[in-house]
Amino acid sequence: MRAEILAVGSELLTPLRSDTNSLHLTERLRAVGVEVAMRVTVGDDVALLEAAFRGALERADVVISTGGLGPTEDDLTREAAAAALGRELLRDPGILERLEARFARYGRVMTPNNAKQADLIAGGRELENPRGTAPGQLVETEGRMLVLLPGPPREMEPLFEGEVLPRIRERAGGTLLHTRVMRIASMGESAVDDALAPIYRRYVAVSTTILSQPGQVELHLTARGGSRDEAEAAIEPLAEELRRRLPGSFYSEDGRELPEVVAELLVARGETLALAESCTGGLLAERLTALPGASRFLEQGWVTYSNRSKTELLGVPPELIESRGAVSEEVAREMARGARRRSGASRAIAITGIAGPDGGTEAKPVGLVYVALAGDGSETVQERRFLGGRRPVRFQSTQTALEMLRRQVLGLES
Amino acid sequence: MRAEILAVGSELLTPLRSDTNSLHLTERLRAVGVEVAMRVTVGDDVALLEAAFRGALERADVVISTGGLGPTEDDLTREAAAAALGRELLRDPGILERLEARFARYGRVMTPNNAKQADLIAGGRELENPRGTAPGQLVETEGRMLVLLPGPPREMEPLFEGEVLPRIRERAGGTLLHTRVMRIASMGESAVDDALAPIYRRYVAVSTTILSQPGQVELHLTARGGSRDEAEAAIEPLAEELRRRLPGSFYSEDGRELPEVVAELLVARGETLALAESCTGGLLAERLTALPGASRFLEQGWVTYSNRSKTELLGVPPELIESRGAVSEEVAREMARGARRRSGASRAIAITGIAGPDGGTEAKPVGLVYVALAGDGSETVQERRFLGGRRPVRFQSTQTALEMLRRQVLGLES
Repeated sequence: MRAEILAVGSELLTPLRSDTNSLHLTERLRAVGVEVAMRVTVGDDVALLEAAFRGALERADVVISTGGLGPTEDDLTREAAAAALGRELLRDPGILERLEARFARYGRVMTPNNAKQADLIAGGRELENPRGTAPGQLVETEGRMLVLLPGPPREMEPLFEGEVLPRIRERAGGTLLHTRVMRIASMGESAVDDALAPIYRRYVAVSTTILSQPGQVELHLTARGGSRDEAEAAIEPLAEELRRRLPGSFYSEDGRELPEVVAELLVARGETLALAESCTGGLLAERLTALPGASRFLEQGWVTYSNRSKTELLGVPPELIESRGAVSEEVAREMARGARRRSGASRAIAITGIAGPDGGTEAKPVGLVYVALAGDGSETVQERRFLGGRRPVRFQSTQTALEMLRRQVLGLES
Repeated sequence: MRAEILAVGSELLTPLRSDTNSLHLTERLRAVGVEVAMRVTVGDDVALLEAAFRGALERADVVISTGGLGPTEDDLTREAAAAALGRELLRDPGILERLEARFARYGRVMTPNNAKQADLIAGGRELENPRGTAPGQLVETEGRMLVLLPGPPREMEPLFEGEVLPRIRERAGGTLLHTRVMRIASMGESAVDDALAPIYRRYVAVSTTILSQPGQVELHLTARGGSRDEAEAAIEPLAEELRRRLPGSFYSEDGRELPEVVAELLVARGETLALAESCTGGLLAERLTALPGASRFLEQGWVTYSNRSKTELLGVPPELIESRGAVSEEVAREMARGARRRSGASRAIAITGIAGPDGGTEAKPVGLVYVALAGDGSETVQERRFLGGRRPVRFQSTQTALEMLRRQVLGLES
């Protein structure tokens, strides 16, 4: 089964508003095995809207529109959909009565323009909208389904969930698509794909997609099944082979991001952490404290941007900064040692590097970052050369630090 | 002139990827007075794609597609666009040669599938893409313009800006829409609108929109003109009245966000800054160091999550934390004093609060935040009660801190 979504409203074609309804519908339809083949955003223009409905009805089994059902003259979805189907609009006395009662309840007189919200496409049925004045509509025609939903998400979502999705799911045969997301922070996209493609290509019942951003690669494994458990059972043998191929590399298979995984690991092991950040300027602390509960493991953090603060706050010898430079393996190591010693935490991370865009030299280019990790009797420093602008360099630095920490705590190789 | 945008790629129809290209193009087209009438997202299906191109070419003066120009078998934009126009694809020897040279430069052999990136729609011209292998294409037909652009934003945006927009602008008759964005961090949306709506409603040649997020209100003033200067001249009298109504409140009128404005102010005045963050956990440091050049004013930052670290690192008396609580005006003040004293910076900010979701009590609910600012002979503490979840509470805390700092440095009332 294929669906198309029409998001209606001129405001959605400006940079000021974004169409979140379509994303929500796409996700919910996908969960019952219905693929969205096309998504259209169209302004408040009745001819364009009619063309959009006509095209969608030619191609898709289910056509869902959101928006344009209100009382103003810009609300043209009913008219356009009726015209595309070649059907009339009929004013429904029951809906009209409820509209009037609703206005009376709020002590207001209903203005005449509101009456058009009671117009139903001939042969269609009302989808009652308890949260707003504009009801939705559902028309079944030659094996196709046309659904008109109101635009505000708080009205649209319950209507769709309660009145529309069960019908679509029944028609779609009751199967659903489920996706497991497996994440890696320690390898680049092509290295991951080289290692894993020969494996996942053999699993034809599971569709595998690789998505990457600097510092992170995600595998999306999708399978169809009668239930989530059935889909998971289809995915697991592939996931197991992938894990065997890259042991320890998948830091999460359940949607958690790296800071959350590391935070839970530290809490579970009773470990505490201190941070000394130079080029990341607090980003690592921010990522770890964006989730609640960081106080259970985070002792303290320093943002030591200046050389003076590296010396005064962390005890890095000034002559070491002088001889090796603030961006060096030795200074990173001393920063981590100082942070651990002064905080009393069981582990400490230090990051120093050149985030750019300025400050690079031939010997120490923009993107050069040292991440040091001091633990109980163990110290590691990694030198990395990240590509991209200031933001990706900083983000990748924090990913590297968190992954080093995860591996050190778990006793994995770095 | 009307434009339609086609975003091509099955991944854009999943919840995994969002189509940022269309938003960018909509904004840039709007700037030259071209309205986007419809926006379509379509998967890698040649029949659907062809239907989408055909419909768009019937309705719009300018049709722009992004994506689907790569070398894989999922990349079908060229084929679909050619079919919709009823034209052939012709392999261009010049492009082919450059493709091969590009591969050779990176020491790789070009696989045969790459050759189709050299296929041009008959009568079209290449838009050379210096940042990727897939060139764009431009076809002019019966007064209409069809543009195929690559999907990666870093390839798409310069191609569009350099090769496409000047042509569209010329056709559109040279007028443009220009928007000035005026930002306020110290007031809520309804207070801003109550104060300013009576003014901006009188200016009919300028369209004014208010957008808000927690901690920030933006006014978008848009006018049409033959040039940016002409549009600015139409906007300025309104802007001047708005400034007179809320003196000192607009922290920026040129797109800069608050951290950038504050950073430039500190550098211009030769001021230095130290930060002591509890509930914001490094977010303020992160926001100030996300821009280059923070080393010119940022002395150092502390993330003092635990009570112990507030005492050890900032010298907050433990008995004060005991008697008043870590989230209190007195502790915020001592944190700021300690940060200023220990850093030697000319100003210091301290933030302590309850970001939630847990940790609130009746007397000290989630969202209660104290922001303290210690300067040269002046101290200010603000108590705020922010709404929303952990993220908006943290963000609003940093906005409040930055706005307090801006006002203190400028000598404005808090």
